[in-house]
Amino acid sequence: MDREKVIELLENVRAGKVEVAEALRILKSLPYEDLGFAKIDTHRSLRKGFPEVILCKGKTPEQVTKIMERLSSRSEFVMATKASKEVYETVRKVRADAVYHETAKIVVIGQRKGKATEKTILVVSAGTADLPVAEEAAVTAEAMGNTVERLYDVGVAGVHRFFDHKEKLFQANVIIVVAGMEGALASIVGGLVDKPVVAVPTSTGYGASFEGLAALLTMLNCCAPGVVVVNIDNGFGAGYFASVINQMGEGT
Amino acid sequence: MDREKVIELLENVRAGKVEVAEALRILKSLPYEDLGFAKIDTHRSLRKGFPEVILCKGKTPEQVTKIMERLSSRSEFVMATKASKEVYETVRKVRADAVYHETAKIVVIGQRKGKATEKTILVVSAGTADLPVAEEAAVTAEAMGNTVERLYDVGVAGVHRFFDHKEKLFQANVIIVVAGMEGALASIVGGLVDKPVVAVPTSTGYGASFEGLAALLTMLNCCAPGVVVVNIDNGFGAGYFASVINQMGEGT
Amino acid sequence: MDREKVIELLENVRAGKVEVAEALRILKSLPYEDLGFAKIDTHRSLRKGFPEVILCKGKTPEQVTKIMERLSSRSEFVMATKASKEVYETVRKVRADAVYHETAKIVVIGQRKGKATEKTILVVSAGTADLPVAEEAAVTAEAMGNTVERLYDVGVAGVHRFFDHKEKLFQANVIIVVAGMEGALASIVGGLVDKPVVAVPTSTGYGASFEGLAALLTMLNCCAPGVVVVNIDNGFGAGYFASVINQMGEGT
Amino acid sequence: MDREKVIELLENVRAGKVEVAEALRILKSLPYEDLGFAKIDTHRSLRKGFPEVILCKGKTPEQVTKIMERLSSRSEFVMATKASKEVYETVRKVRADAVYHETAKIVVIGQRKGKATEKTILVVSAGTADLPVAEEAAVTAEAMGNTVERLYDVGVAGVHRFFDHKEKLFQANVIIVVAGMEGALASIVGGLVDKPVVAVPTSTGYGASFEGLAALLTMLNCCAPGVVVVNIDNGFGAGYFASVINQMGEGT
Amino acid sequence: MDREKVIELLENVRAGKVEVAEALRILKSLPYEDLGFAKIDTHRSLRKGFPEVILCKGKTPEQVTKIMERLSSRSEFVMATKASKEVYETVRKVRADAVYHETAKIVVIGQRKGKATEKTILVVSAGTADLPVAEEAAVTAEAMGNTVERLYDVGVAGVHRFFDHKEKLFQANVIIVVAGMEGALASIVGGLVDKPVVAVPTSTGYGASFEGLAALLTMLNCCAPGVVVVNIDNGFGAGYFASVINQMGEGT
Amino acid sequence: MDREKVIELLENVRAGKVEVAEALRILKSLPYEDLGFAKIDTHRSLRKGFPEVILCKGKTPEQVTKIMERLSSRSEFVMATKASKEVYETVRKVRADAVYHETAKIVVIGQRKGKATEKTILVVSAGTADLPVAEEAAVTAEAMGNTVERLYDVGVAGVHRFFDHKEKLFQANVIIVVAGMEGALASIVGGLVDKPVVAVPTSTGYGASFEGLAALLTMLNCCAPGVVVVNIDNGFGAGYFASVINQMGEGT
Amino acid sequence: MDREKVIELLENVRAGKVEVAEALRILKSLPYEDLGFAKIDTHRSLRKGFPEVILCKGKTPEQVTKIMERLSSRSEFVMATKASKEVYETVRKVRADAVYHETAKIVVIGQRKGKATEKTILVVSAGTADLPVAEEAAVTAEAMGNTVERLYDVGVAGVHRFFDHKEKLFQANVIIVVAGMEGALASIVGGLVDKPVVAVPTSTGYGASFEGLAALLTMLNCCAPGVVVVNIDNGFGAGYFASVINQMGEGT
Amino acid sequence: MDREKVIELLENVRAGKVEVAEALRILKSLPYEDLGFAKIDTHRSLRKGFPEVILCKGKTPEQVTKIMERLSSRSEFVMATKASKEVYETVRKVRADAVYHETAKIVVIGQRKGKATEKTILVVSAGTADLPVAEEAAVTAEAMGNTVERLYDVGVAGVHRFFDHKEKLFQANVIIVVAGMEGALASIVGGLVDKPVVAVPTSTGYGASFEGLAALLTMLNCCAPGVVVVNIDNGFGAGYFASVINQMGEGT
Repeated sequence: MDREKVIELLENVRAGKVEVAEALRILKSLPYEDLGFAKIDTHRSLRKGFPEVILCKGKTPEQVTKIMERLSSRSEFVMATKASKEVYETVRKVRADAVYHETAKIVVIGQRKGKATEKTILVVSAGTADLPVAEEAAVTAEAMGNTVERLYDVGVAGVHRFFDHKEKLFQANVIIVVAGMEGALASIVGGLVDKPVVAVPTSTGYGASFEGLAALLTMLNCCAPGVVVVNIDNGFGAGYFASVINQMGEGT
Repeated sequence: MDREKVIELLENVRAGKVEVAEALRILKSLPYEDLGFAKIDTHRSLRKGFPEVILCKGKTPEQVTKIMERLSSRSEFVMATKASKEVYETVRKVRADAVYHETAKIVVIGQRKGKATEKTILVVSAGTADLPVAEEAAVTAEAMGNTVERLYDVGVAGVHRFFDHKEKLFQANVIIVVAGMEGALASIVGGLVDKPVVAVPTSTGYGASFEGLAALLTMLNCCAPGVVVVNIDNGFGAGYFASVINQMGEGT
Repeated sequence: MDREKVIELLENVRAGKVEVAEALRILKSLPYEDLGFAKIDTHRSLRKGFPEVILCKGKTPEQVTKIMERLSSRSEFVMATKASKEVYETVRKVRADAVYHETAKIVVIGQRKGKATEKTILVVSAGTADLPVAEEAAVTAEAMGNTVERLYDVGVAGVHRFFDHKEKLFQANVIIVVAGMEGALASIVGGLVDKPVVAVPTSTGYGASFEGLAALLTMLNCCAPGVVVVNIDNGFGAGYFASVINQMGEGT
Repeated sequence: MDREKVIELLENVRAGKVEVAEALRILKSLPYEDLGFAKIDTHRSLRKGFPEVILCKGKTPEQVTKIMERLSSRSEFVMATKASKEVYETVRKVRADAVYHETAKIVVIGQRKGKATEKTILVVSAGTADLPVAEEAAVTAEAMGNTVERLYDVGVAGVHRFFDHKEKLFQANVIIVVAGMEGALASIVGGLVDKPVVAVPTSTGYGASFEGLAALLTMLNCCAPGVVVVNIDNGFGAGYFASVINQMGEGT
Repeated sequence: MDREKVIELLENVRAGKVEVAEALRILKSLPYEDLGFAKIDTHRSLRKGFPEVILCKGKTPEQVTKIMERLSSRSEFVMATKASKEVYETVRKVRADAVYHETAKIVVIGQRKGKATEKTILVVSAGTADLPVAEEAAVTAEAMGNTVERLYDVGVAGVHRFFDHKEKLFQANVIIVVAGMEGALASIVGGLVDKPVVAVPTSTGYGASFEGLAALLTMLNCCAPGVVVVNIDNGFGAGYFASVINQMGEGT
Repeated sequence: MDREKVIELLENVRAGKVEVAEALRILKSLPYEDLGFAKIDTHRSLRKGFPEVILCKGKTPEQVTKIMERLSSRSEFVMATKASKEVYETVRKVRADAVYHETAKIVVIGQRKGKATEKTILVVSAGTADLPVAEEAAVTAEAMGNTVERLYDVGVAGVHRFFDHKEKLFQANVIIVVAGMEGALASIVGGLVDKPVVAVPTSTGYGASFEGLAALLTMLNCCAPGVVVVNIDNGFGAGYFASVINQMGEGT
Repeated sequence: MDREKVIELLENVRAGKVEVAEALRILKSLPYEDLGFAKIDTHRSLRKGFPEVILCKGKTPEQVTKIMERLSSRSEFVMATKASKEVYETVRKVRADAVYHETAKIVVIGQRKGKATEKTILVVSAGTADLPVAEEAAVTAEAMGNTVERLYDVGVAGVHRFFDHKEKLFQANVIIVVAGMEGALASIVGGLVDKPVVAVPTSTGYGASFEGLAALLTMLNCCAPGVVVVNIDNGFGAGYFASVINQMGEGT
Repeated sequence: MDREKVIELLENVRAGKVEVAEALRILKSLPYEDLGFAKIDTHRSLRKGFPEVILCKGKTPEQVTKIMERLSSRSEFVMATKASKEVYETVRKVRADAVYHETAKIVVIGQRKGKATEKTILVVSAGTADLPVAEEAAVTAEAMGNTVERLYDVGVAGVHRFFDHKEKLFQANVIIVVAGMEGALASIVGGLVDKPVVAVPTSTGYGASFEGLAALLTMLNCCAPGVVVVNIDNGFGAGYFASVINQMGEGT
């Protein structure tokens, strides 16, 4: 549309209908994206079938509902993370088709279409208490069209349980490791495989876990290369990033 | 080789040359990797042409030299990071062919062979003081067979300089952002592109930068999805991870 | 008044009605401000039409109500910040004319008179969750007689949205930037404009935002000069300071 | 110049010398600032007579020298902060006219011209050890055309010394307070005057001053409104900001 | 009593009724305090009329009640600090004579007798929100027999209010300063008087006050000598210490 | 069992029933522990009579109940720590034989059998508020078959109380010290005895105890050798470790 | 003197030589202390025989020397703390009578006269590495006219050594405890005696002592009442405060 | 000796040579240990053949030398840790028989005699940079009479290397794990074995390792029970504690 506006303007300049000085003024005041800054195009294409995502934390249920409604008018798929049950109940009142992933604390509206990949993202988590964050990552990656495998409750305290599932590790294309407390699981996975590992520290634990700081520092200091880190409890960010790299070379 | 040992053992069992009990004992005591845990194979193949990397920090020049010598006997390419000039001088005494990337503080021995990719990794850095870390990332990525572009000194304080180079941003396949002080460059890049961004906080700055803590926290809290973080000053880790994902789908 | 007391005293000394020693004693024991320390005058003049401000945090609704009543007896305008709805309800019982700015969490009594300026203070905020702090700043600045523009929800994750509104940025005289999580918005604004920028970190976010610490450090390390920082969530302080500098050169 | 380029382009479009499609492509790829984003104009005008500033920390003396040379080719005044004597000596070799403000650790090349103001910026500092930061602020403000008063060594431990100079306080238009250790001086000044106060915590002190953290927190928590804060030891930032607001309403 | 046991033992040794070896064995196994380690005597004498103090935090109301009952059986005065209303209600059920200092959150049983001093302890506090801690200090000091003056709400933001009361400052023998947020009040008082100042940081404030950390660091870094610090919110500790030094030289 | 599988496989190889290549494939895919990695055996033997332990924190009562049921199907004794009363109530609905140690916040199902030792573990705690953690340690150690002595409420503020019980100190084989606030009790015990001391910092306290950080740092810096530390509030970990070393040399 | 000026002014007013308006103006502009604010008098009297103290940290040897010279022109006794040997050497060049307390790192000029007290301040320190801070406290207290006892190297690791000297503990009037690492010595002393204890954490130690933070937190959380804290390594502050309270009731 | 004094005193009482009151007074003032507090005896026996240990950090070479000389006059074995080469050179001047363990940074004088045990302490370390701390632990444990095995350079980044040495792990009686950076090695070892594990975080690493804080937190949060932690870089403490528990049940 805006592209068309510029063309129209230039044609008007050519036709002598618009003065050069006037054209200059208009060009300057056009919204930035009208000039085709690539991100915008990308963004627009992403909107077709890609989740727009709302972080519920710090917003009232009413605010979340309003934003979801507004976004779903121009997007076939809308997603809200860190959504309490109360948020979901409020959204459902106006959108009966809203779906709640309870463990993941994610509310979605609509059906995402578009590309899907067979390549697997494996979500590994250390303990039951890490499930909400692990599921946030898994549901996000699925929403973005990836095949997701889950390997839960394979904490370091029983490393042997972990080795029972090494097939899953080696078949995955990208691995997300979700762990709280000492977060050492990321180091072990990073030491075993040569796939990209996205580590998510969680606020699970108590005492000197300092709300996830211990796991965060562990993962940042991971001496196995091939491990990167996202914010504490940021399952969404991990799922999103894993999806981006899982679909690399698939003709974006 | 070890694979062969197991086959030989099984054949000896079949031939009745080795007792079952004895075979059991040997199987248990075999080095773990003999059973073909995938990482090891990977590792072995990686050794052909891939850098083995030594972190010099905390090691004496003599220790680094010895390790490099040992590794270069079984690897055609050896790399040492965070290497002071003194380390290089010590290595050079026994290996005249050692090369020193002075800004990157990397010493390499040998010539890496093997696959290379045309897809570009772009290394963006905020300021002159971030150069050593940016170069550590760039040299690492080059060593791993990637095409590397550099876009240096495009700090947030002059955002417009940054926009001059948007072509480079959009042509890259993976972007590494290196920034100290407030580290906001990662947020800006992450907000503009939809390529994976690997953010490297640096210890550049003073006062409340707290040796890189400020940049680290900024990058971890980046609200643009698609940004992941490595340790403060860990240019090597960023270069390595960027290489892994840059070469995904290239027939590993 | 007190000024008059000193004059009276001096005249009594001149008239011989008061001994020198006695005058000396009285001078020493006079309340400090009687001697005209400028702040007091300023203060007194400020009281005409300027908000006296109560921070509700840590005070009971009853305490706030009492203080507001006492102050409104000698001030035509009284303002209380960080006021919960409960505080407002308690105040309203005794002052039916109290007004509650719900998002800003500000209670005001009375009508402020006095100077107003046409020059604009622009309040920019990154996300919906930052609204309470942004509104605290905006309402404060309005209460102090400034023209206030709002530019909300222009976070870094969609920098392009930000550029759509550059007119507002360039027309403002002073800019307040309110942002949580990584707080990079302050850096971007500071890098684009040459107006004074007052940055307010908020406790919005989770994980490694550490209740606003990440945003605070980002803003303190901002490499664009022309950016200063107030306490986390201190919308009032930012609004107040912005007002002071917005009205400079307007004949205080 | 670039403005001219766009006009030329538009005229060529009008003259039919350039196709619309071609014009569109050129418009998109033009450097961003060519479209007249205001900051750039501002920037350009600022360059006339205004310091371009280099932070020496983290740069080698050779790097600083090169940057200063390059900048001074297009700017009549160049300034480098946090410059050690060694940096100065290196710069002087190629620029004999370089001047070193030793206490402020600032190197300048050239003579700044342009507007100056009679309105005073007062720099208050607590102790002898805070002098380098205080001088960095003062020299910066002077370089930017302000009249600067200094009031040094008026620490809290002897508040009475402070009151001796209240005239200076009340005559200033903007006040910069530089203090380490507990940083309480900012609170006292902020409690006495109604002028904008820019507080600079310094890393002066020992033990629980934690390299300036104590002073930083004190200043951020200052309950007197009208006080804003810059990074620890950031005398330049304070001088710059103070200058910006000191010259407000002076016909920028 | 135990003293008597030792005397009896020694007399039995003298009378030959107890063997030396046996006496040695008994001496070794006697409870430690039987040998008159001075603290014990002190302690015993203190019990006469001096509060035994229970910190309620972390204890259930039932536990507090039981401890108070047990202590009041051997002490004429028992005191519990950080006591919620619920604690008081529970205590009152079994001890109808319990008294609740609501602001100070102190429950007392019994009447303290014994020495009292005319010398004044002045409790200065910065804001209304600091009252609970200030009152904890004041009630404690009164319970220990001191004359206590209160000077509340004299924060730094209005230093002049503080100077109005300088008489109180100069008449006090010991001064307790209670302040949250930036805690600068301690520095100001310490800079004005030459009496011992006991500074109590409080958890009052928000944002970068970090639950009292800012005030604590400010007070520890106080450059005025003559200021010492107790734990955040430790009104009791300040009141106790102030009492000990207020009564020095009064014939303990 | 699994051991038998490998033997069977080898015998089949010997008998020519299984091809060598096939045997190799099976060996690689066998669960890791089948190869008899010692830990597994240990683990299996431990299961006979040893608690499997669930950390309730971060898990829903329903999750805890399900895990306890599953574990108790293969273990005669199951234990859950940090269990709220609500967890217990939920567990009891399906397992009426569940027992709740209320102070220790531990739920157990079943009766542990197996070895017990006469050697004593002494649990020393500083104050009433530390009881839950102390009891968690004591109940754990008892569950593991140790004789446990308790010595509670012997805080540093009344060191003499501590010395009354020195017999207990010298008779113990291992000592667990549980203390919050300043945590100095560990230093005192460590300075008096030559038995191994396991120190448990607790989150008891307020203000600068920073949720147990103060006690943790104190204990880590303990200059008396022979003191080791576990996580804040980790009574279970201390009880477990104390049990392991208390039973050393008892024929594991 | 200034007092005289006011009297002279008042007499001139009485004599009609000075107008009332003029007198008012002069009164306002008089240096604050001229009006007899008590601190000033105190200060003046203190100057007779009392140390003026310079903190050398952050000052050049030349700056220290100049300040000492200036102060010694109006004070019979001047003291500089945290003085390196280099500082002393520089001072000695212009003041051959300067004395260096090497361990305490204190330089003094002149001889302090005035009151002295028989009452003892006991300085207790934990280890050899704490000596500089302990001596700073001791030398300061001696300089202020107190009798000082030293009890060094009685760390917690050998509590029994401590008990050997209990006489010294009970004979002291005020006790200064200097300790690094875990700082538990303050708790033990505070638990044994009922004298005021001034605790000085030191930066002695390594690892998790975090430059004195561990000791600082320990001392702040000391559950024995009667213990107050000064800044890390602030021996001077402790000596000064101890002196003030040691001389209370001695006719200030 | 002192025991004899008490006997002598009691005999004098029996003989009527000493009055009961006098005896009481003497008993009170006797040095504490004279009464046979068990630690002292233990201590005395330990002195025969057991290292007295000096921490060199914070002491001058001269101080260390003097202390070593004094101690070696009454002990056949003296040990100093964290000793720089300079310390050793200074000691050697007066004690030519001093031995320097260069990597461990330990100086010893004399030959330790006494019990030794066959049971093995295994010291595992992650990287070359951790060697000094690992050796401090190993040399300490050897000095105390233990058989020590070393397993160095088995970091997490190559977990497979670690499994090659599992025999060593299972044969050890106590395991010391020394690791910097993320410190995950302790979790892995703790998850594999059921022997007591003493974890030593080291200050190895850079960036977010924050001088060992990351490794410390990881180890404290280790979810495998059976792992305890000592201070950062405290190899001596780990070696000492490991020795104490390795020799349990060996007839202390």
